[in-house]
Amino acid sequence: MCEANAYLRKDGREELFLEAVDKVVPHEDGLMLEDIFGRRKIIKARIAELALVDHRIILEKE
Amino acid sequence: MCEANAYLRKDGREELFLEAVDKVVPHEDGLMLEDIFGRRKIIKARIAELALVDHRIILEKE
Repeated sequence: MCEANAYLRKDGREELFLEAVDKVVPHEDGLMLEDIFGRRKIIKARIAELALVDHRIILEKE
Repeated sequence: MCEANAYLRKDGREELFLEAVDKVVPHEDGLMLEDIFGRRKIIKARIAELALVDHRIILEKE
């Protein structure tokens, strides 16, 4: 599977926000993330970086 | 491999911008995309959506 883990970058550190993310779509003034099991989480953030071979999505607060 | 293809969404259509993307990182006021072979392309755009199981990155001009 080609999901990735989403991390929130804060003060130079990265906190795991959601594992096994499939979809990231705009939601109001933030993002809706959906994992491969259909579980959803919403966050006021933007996608800052991707490293897909490492399965990493980096989010940052706007 | 867990790379994805990057598409630029424009006027409701999606144009392939770069295949087999590994990394997407901020670059000046846009993004630098790097594919799994190390080839790089720069674009003034932001990441709008991801659908990783479908291997899709959707970019939009800012």
